[in-house]
Amino acid sequence: MTDNRVYRTRTLGIPAEGLKDQYADGTAAKLWELYIGDKNKRTQTYRNFIAGLLRKKGCHNILDVACGTGVDSIMLLEEGFQLTSVDLSDKMLKYALKTRWRRRKETAFDNWVIEEANWLTLPHDIEGCGTFDAVVCLGNSFAHLPDLSGDQSEHRMALSNFAEMVKPGGILLIDHRNYDYIIDKGSAPANNIYYNSDHIQDIKTSVLYVNGRPSLVTLDYQMDVSDVTRDDTDSEVAKKGRTEGEGKSNFRLSYYPHRVERFGSLLREMFGEGATHTVYGDFVPLGEVADPAFYIHVVEKPA
Amino acid sequence: MTDNRVYRTRTLGIPAEGLKDQYADGTAAKLWELYIGDKNKRTQTYRNFIAGLLRKKGCHNILDVACGTGVDSIMLLEEGFQLTSVDLSDKMLKYALKTRWRRRKETAFDNWVIEEANWLTLPHDIEGCGTFDAVVCLGNSFAHLPDLSGDQSEHRMALSNFAEMVKPGGILLIDHRNYDYIIDKGSAPANNIYYNSDHIQDIKTSVLYVNGRPSLVTLDYQMDVSDVTRDDTDSEVAKKGRTEGEGKSNFRLSYYPHRVERFGSLLREMFGEGATHTVYGDFVPLGEVADPAFYIHVVEKPA
Amino acid sequence: MTDNRVYRTRTLGIPAEGLKDQYADGTAAKLWELYIGDKNKRTQTYRNFIAGLLRKKGCHNILDVACGTGVDSIMLLEEGFQLTSVDLSDKMLKYALKTRWRRRKETAFDNWVIEEANWLTLPHDIEGCGTFDAVVCLGNSFAHLPDLSGDQSEHRMALSNFAEMVKPGGILLIDHRNYDYIIDKGSAPANNIYYNSDHIQDIKTSVLYVNGRPSLVTLDYQMDVSDVTRDDTDSEVAKKGRTEGEGKSNFRLSYYPHRVERFGSLLREMFGEGATHTVYGDFVPLGEVADPAFYIHVVEKPA
Amino acid sequence: MTDNRVYRTRTLGIPAEGLKDQYADGTAAKLWELYIGDKNKRTQTYRNFIAGLLRKKGCHNILDVACGTGVDSIMLLEEGFQLTSVDLSDKMLKYALKTRWRRRKETAFDNWVIEEANWLTLPHDIEGCGTFDAVVCLGNSFAHLPDLSGDQSEHRMALSNFAEMVKPGGILLIDHRNYDYIIDKGSAPANNIYYNSDHIQDIKTSVLYVNGRPSLVTLDYQMDVSDVTRDDTDSEVAKKGRTEGEGKSNFRLSYYPHRVERFGSLLREMFGEGATHTVYGDFVPLGEVADPAFYIHVVEKPA
Repeated sequence: MTDNRVYRTRTLGIPAEGLKDQYADGTAAKLWELYIGDKNKRTQTYRNFIAGLLRKKGCHNILDVACGTGVDSIMLLEEGFQLTSVDLSDKMLKYALKTRWRRRKETAFDNWVIEEANWLTLPHDIEGCGTFDAVVCLGNSFAHLPDLSGDQSEHRMALSNFAEMVKPGGILLIDHRNYDYIIDKGSAPANNIYYNSDHIQDIKTSVLYVNGRPSLVTLDYQMDVSDVTRDDTDSEVAKKGRTEGEGKSNFRLSYYPHRVERFGSLLREMFGEGATHTVYGDFVPLGEVADPAFYIHVVEKPA
Repeated sequence: MTDNRVYRTRTLGIPAEGLKDQYADGTAAKLWELYIGDKNKRTQTYRNFIAGLLRKKGCHNILDVACGTGVDSIMLLEEGFQLTSVDLSDKMLKYALKTRWRRRKETAFDNWVIEEANWLTLPHDIEGCGTFDAVVCLGNSFAHLPDLSGDQSEHRMALSNFAEMVKPGGILLIDHRNYDYIIDKGSAPANNIYYNSDHIQDIKTSVLYVNGRPSLVTLDYQMDVSDVTRDDTDSEVAKKGRTEGEGKSNFRLSYYPHRVERFGSLLREMFGEGATHTVYGDFVPLGEVADPAFYIHVVEKPA
Repeated sequence: MTDNRVYRTRTLGIPAEGLKDQYADGTAAKLWELYIGDKNKRTQTYRNFIAGLLRKKGCHNILDVACGTGVDSIMLLEEGFQLTSVDLSDKMLKYALKTRWRRRKETAFDNWVIEEANWLTLPHDIEGCGTFDAVVCLGNSFAHLPDLSGDQSEHRMALSNFAEMVKPGGILLIDHRNYDYIIDKGSAPANNIYYNSDHIQDIKTSVLYVNGRPSLVTLDYQMDVSDVTRDDTDSEVAKKGRTEGEGKSNFRLSYYPHRVERFGSLLREMFGEGATHTVYGDFVPLGEVADPAFYIHVVEKPA
Repeated sequence: MTDNRVYRTRTLGIPAEGLKDQYADGTAAKLWELYIGDKNKRTQTYRNFIAGLLRKKGCHNILDVACGTGVDSIMLLEEGFQLTSVDLSDKMLKYALKTRWRRRKETAFDNWVIEEANWLTLPHDIEGCGTFDAVVCLGNSFAHLPDLSGDQSEHRMALSNFAEMVKPGGILLIDHRNYDYIIDKGSAPANNIYYNSDHIQDIKTSVLYVNGRPSLVTLDYQMDVSDVTRDDTDSEVAKKGRTEGEGKSNFRLSYYPHRVERFGSLLREMFGEGATHTVYGDFVPLGEVADPAFYIHVVEKPA
C-alpha cells in the first residue's frame, strides 16, 4: 500500500543537453513508438492535411520543434521536405537518430539535421533564426510545457521563440488536444485522428483544478505490449526487441490544458498585428466536426 | 524554474512507529500549532458543542484518534475528561508530549495517555478495545486517509477499527470539511468555525478529478509567521523560538473529499444496523446554516 | 542486483528541530536500545568509573550533549546527579522522553531537562552557558560528527561550544572508540566494555581512505532481534512490542576516526592553555590495557 | 554544510536500454571527452601498441565492449579495423553516434556498428557470438563493474561473456589501472600514458576497505574547463559549445580495485586451460617500467 498518487508535470524549462526530462527513463519513449503505432498505419488524412498545407504555403525548409522519436519529421522527409528536427529529450531523439542512420542512403535522410534544443532558449540553441519556411509543433507537444509561473510566461516565451525562428511570411503549425472537451466531460474523446494504435488499452484522465481553474491534465496510458518485440528502429545487430526484459506497459504524461479560444489569442499576441490565424478541428474547418479530438492552429508571420 | 507541481496524499496506511508521515519534516506540525492559533482563542462555540455533546451522552473515557499536537485532547482534559490520545505522526505528538510534561502537576495531564498508533491497525496497536465511551476524530483529520485502493477499503477499515474501540452504546464523533462546497465552488468556505488564527494569509485550493470523479483535494496554506517566536510548548531551557532559523511559512496537506451524504452512508454501514446517525453543520442541525464550513457526524454504536 | 554500496556519514551540522538526522527513520534508535542492552546489565565498571570521576571532581549539574535514548543520563540520574540532556535526533530522544514520563514520580526524573540541540549552535540552542559542572559526551558519539570541511573546523566548533557550556574549573568527559586499532587492523576490537548485548551478531567494518588519510569508518551492525518484543520504555497501553512488524535488524553508522593523540591535541587547543588533559583506556590509565576498545578523555577548564 | 560524502559505485548490472547508469546525468560523459583530450593528441605509443598487437594477431573484426564516447573505436577505425562498439551508457554513446554521423562519408565509419549492451547479458544483447577476432575493453573500463555479490561473480560473468564473443583463436585485450600501487600508496600514479589532457587539474583518490580488504576505489576528477567551448562532435547547427551554461567541472567515478596477479588468475580461469596470457605494464613487458600506470592483459582463446 504505497502512495502512487503523485502528479507531476514535465519539467521543460531546463537546459537541454544531459539533463533530465519527463521521458528520461526511456519507458515513455519506447511506448510512445508503440502508441503511435506503425508509421505506415498513420492516417492518410493526417499526412495529406499537413503536407498539403505546407506545400500550399510554399514551404520547403521546415523546423520540427517537437521531433520526439521522429514520427512527423520522417513523414515530412518522405514527402520531400528539408527538415531540422529538435527535442529536449535525448531519450526520444535516440529513436529518430536510429532511423536517420538506418535510412542514411536516402538523400532526404542524409540531409536531416537532428539536435537537442529547449523551446525556452531556442534561438540560442540552434542556428537558422528567421530562416525557416515553417515551424511545426505537432502531436499535442506544446501542452507538455507547464505553466510554472502561473501567468503563462513560459508559454509566451516558447511561442515568441517559435515566431523568431520563422522567416517573415512563414508559418507556425501547432496543435493540441481538445482540452475544452476534456475539461467539460472529464475524459478525452475516444477517437484519435492522428494515429492507429493496436496497443493502447485505456487512458485514465485526471484534471487538476487550482482555485477553480483547470491547470493540469494527466493522462495515464495503459498499453498491451505482449505481442511486441522489435520494430524497424532496431538494428540487425541488436538481438533484443525493444520492450523485452521490462514488461512495463504504463506511462503517465502531464499537460497544460490549452482552451482553443485562449490559445488562439496567445498565438495572435505573440505573432503580432498583421498575423493571420486559422484553426482546424480534426483537419477540417471549425464547426464541421462536433467535438474534434485535436485542434490545429496555423499562424502566418507578417511578411 | 524548478517543478513544484507535485500533488501528494498523506500516506497513512503504514505502521506507525519510526516510519515517515506527511508531517515528518516537522514544518506542518509547527505551522499547524500556529494555524490553529492560541488555544485560549479557540471558539467557545466549538468547546461548548463538543464537551456538551460528550457530557449529554454520559461519556468520560475518551479516545482521541487524531491527537496531532493535542489541541482537542487538551481542551477535553481541561473540561475534565479522561483521555487516551493517539496519532500516526510522532512529529505532531512531540508538541502534545511537551504540553503534557509542562502541565504534569495537573492530575488530568498526569493521567493523560499518549501513544503512536495507526488507524488501519488500531486494535492491534493499543489496549482498551471496546471500552471507550467515545472515539473522537476531529479537525478534518479523517480526510487525510487517502483512497489508495480506489474502492474506499482503507476508509472502511479505519472506521471499522474506530467502531471496535467504542464500547456498546458509546459514540463516534467525526468531522470533515464541507467538500461538497469545495468541489462545487472550487475553494473552501472562508469562515473557520473551529479556530482563530491571525497567521493564516491564504489557502490555495486544488481539486483533482480522475475520470470525472473528484478524488483529491490539496490545500496549500500560506502563513505570515514574521511576528512569531515562541509559544507555550517551548520550555524555559530552549533558547530558540519555535520557528526561528527556518522562515518556512507554507505547507501543503492533501485530503480525500468526503461528500456528506456518502460519508454518512459509510458510517452507518460500518457501525451496523441499529446504529443512530446525526449530522451537524457548523455545530447546529443540518439546514440551519447555509454552506457550513464543517460537518460533524455523531454515530451511536448499538448497545 | 541493486547497488547498495553507499557510504554516508551522519549529517550532524544542521539545525536540530524538525530536520532529518541519521537516526531519522527510527530503525537505528530502536536497535540502539537493543544493542546497548538491558540498562541493568550495563557494566558496573563503566558506572563506577563515570560516576566516581564526576563525584571526585565535585560535579553535580551535568550537561549530557549526546543523550540519545538516554542510557548515560538515566544512569547518572540514578546516581543522584542533576541532568540536562540534549540530542540532535528527536527519534532518539523519544525513548528518553518515554522513560522520563514513566519514572516522573521519582524526583530526579521529575527534574530531568530534555531538549533538542545541535552541537554546532549549542550556546544558542539552550540556556545555561558557562554554568555546568561537567559536560559529558559518551558512547562514541562525538565521532558521529563528520569532517565535512576537511580541516576539522566542525570538530573545533563543537568542542569550543562544549567548553563554553562548562563553568570555569568544570570538566568535559568525552570518549571515542580506539580508531588507531581499527585503522591499523581493519576491524574493531571484539570486546565492548560499555555494554552487554545479547543481540549483536556481527559488525562489518569499512574504512575509507581519502588521498591516503583515513577519513571515515562505517560500522554495519547485524543484530538478531528474533527474541525481542517489548522493553521497559514501552507503555502498558501500547500493545506492540518495539520491533514487531518490521523485522529489520541491521543498521549502518558512520564515524570520523579520531586518533587518540590527535584528538587530545584538539581538546587542549580548544580548552586553552592551563587546561589539564588526562586519557584513560577502558577506564584505566593509558598503557595498562593493550588495545583498549575505548579511550576516555577528561579535560578540565581553567578556573 | 550539506553532506556530500556519498560513495557510490557505477551500477552496471542492469539491463542496458533506457535505464540509468553512472554517466546518466551527462556530466561525466561531457567531461570525459575533455579529460581524454583532443583525439589527435592521444599518445602515439598507445596507438602503435594497440593497433600493432591486433595486426600481429591477424585481427580485423573487433568488438569494443567499452566504447563510451568512442575514443578507442575511432582510433581503430582510422587504423582500418572493422568495429562493433557497445556500451551500457547511452549518454556516452551519444558522442560516438555524433562522430559516426559527422564522418559517415568515410567507409569505415559508414560500416561502424554501435549498440547499447550490458556485459552481463552480452551474448543475448547483440549478434555475432563467437565470431570476433578480438574483444577490446580498454581505458580502465572493466573496473567500473562492481563486486556487488562480494565473490566476484559479476566479474566472472562478464569475462565469460567476453570469452564467448571471441572466436576460437581470437584474443581479449583488457586493461586496468595499477591498483596495487593505488592501494599501497593511497593515490594514483601521476603519469597517464593513454591520454594528453590539458584540462585535468587534480584527482582525489579514495580507497574503501571492508573488513580489511580494499573493495572500492573512488576517483574525484577536478577539471578546468574555463577555456572550452566546442569540440568536433558538436555539429554546425548547434550553437552551444558543449559545456556552456553549466560550469560543472567535477565528476566522480568508482572502481573495483583489481590487483594484477588476481586479475590474471581470473582471466585464465574464465578462458579455460590452453589459454595464453600475457601482461604489459604501460605497453612494455612487465618489469621494464617501475610502477606502471596501467596494466594491459592479452588473453588468447584456445583455437
